[in-house]
Amino acid sequence: MANPTAAMLVIGDEILSGRTRDANMHFLAGELTKQGISLSEVRIVADEKPQIVAALKALSTSYDTVFTSGGIGPTHDDITADCVAEAFGQSIDVRADAAALLQAHYDASGQEFNAARQRMARIPEHATLIDNPVSVAPGFTVENVHVMAGVPVVFQAMVASVLPTLTGGAPLLSQTLRIDRGEGDIAGPLAELAAEFDDLSIGSYPFQKNGAFGANIVIRGTDGARVDAAITKLAGMFE
Amino acid sequence: MANPTAAMLVIGDEILSGRTRDANMHFLAGELTKQGISLSEVRIVADEKPQIVAALKALSTSYDTVFTSGGIGPTHDDITADCVAEAFGQSIDVRADAAALLQAHYDASGQEFNAARQRMARIPEHATLIDNPVSVAPGFTVENVHVMAGVPVVFQAMVASVLPTLTGGAPLLSQTLRIDRGEGDIAGPLAELAAEFDDLSIGSYPFQKNGAFGANIVIRGTDGARVDAAITKLAGMFE
Repeated sequence: MANPTAAMLVIGDEILSGRTRDANMHFLAGELTKQGISLSEVRIVADEKPQIVAALKALSTSYDTVFTSGGIGPTHDDITADCVAEAFGQSIDVRADAAALLQAHYDASGQEFNAARQRMARIPEHATLIDNPVSVAPGFTVENVHVMAGVPVVFQAMVASVLPTLTGGAPLLSQTLRIDRGEGDIAGPLAELAAEFDDLSIGSYPFQKNGAFGANIVIRGTDGARVDAAITKLAGMFE
Repeated sequence: MANPTAAMLVIGDEILSGRTRDANMHFLAGELTKQGISLSEVRIVADEKPQIVAALKALSTSYDTVFTSGGIGPTHDDITADCVAEAFGQSIDVRADAAALLQAHYDASGQEFNAARQRMARIPEHATLIDNPVSVAPGFTVENVHVMAGVPVVFQAMVASVLPTLTGGAPLLSQTLRIDRGEGDIAGPLAELAAEFDDLSIGSYPFQKNGAFGANIVIRGTDGARVDAAITKLAGMFE
């Protein structure tokens, strides 16, 4: 289970205020799982520089790869690029390569490449750009941190260009068995199963539906035959 | 803007693997905002003791109140209570008050109060119990940390019993204006507005729909007249 690890940092007030519901985290979690990369931690912080810088430092030290979403647009509350520069001790300014991409885009569409839009070309000095096929303004990578937009369609496009550059692990296979009994009935046998199959990850996700309790038991591992064997044994326990 | 602050710690692999999509965070964010409490940070960590303990210590030190969800059921992957005890240097064992609640419940329903179910009565020594009107197994509070179940219907019931015990702030009022222009056109005037109304929080949440760009501008504050004045001025800017 030595798959590469990843963390995600979601930047912005909109999820914390309950205004919107996360979409990017759910998307990234699914994509990383397919690649055999374990999403190990997610943090959501407000548009506050000290919080963002502290989270960037903590996550980039603890995990192989970090993805951020949000805060790289042209408005006054978009401070992610400056925070990344500070966290990694790099200078930041409007960079020629990013400005050229945006200038060409706005020239072609007859829009002004104004001061606000030039903010989107502020990139830390040693960053490499991440392609944005949707709306041009690039994301960027600094060391092991990939900085991406928060708008879901742009976030997803940036993930698609970053993922092939990462070293994945063995794909994590997963099988689920729904058991219509309370976890209190399931827990004893399940603990024995977890002890026997200690190379697998066995999780119990309880639910309540129409007043009845049950749990989805999810068994994950990189060896399909072992996952099969465990789920078969589990099914036999609750026939 | 000196409203009380809160953080949330979501414990469990199911969101990190992309298997399920968060519901509790979204619910709690909305409830806290109504109470005038700022949800300032959310962390999601896997069922791993060192990660959970570290997050509990960091969040309980940094924020007025912390809510956790998940990991207090009867199965082998439910380790939250033990982590809370460790984070706060308290001992933990099956506690008589919690065991009595559960014993009565299982006696009444003719189910066995077995070893697995007794796990749900493991409560840190100095914790106070949080009522669970749905499925009896209690949550608990240690210092400024409220430990709650992950099943949404139970989580919501526990939030309902904890919230009235907290000191809220002035309710945060919010108005939103949708502007069907790219953020690059909006950003300049919006920065001026934010400078003029620096007692308010002004956020820009861009979207893309059918190929067209726009942004929802959300203005928040505790003084309704100021929020009105700012949104009126904003609307005038983009007529």
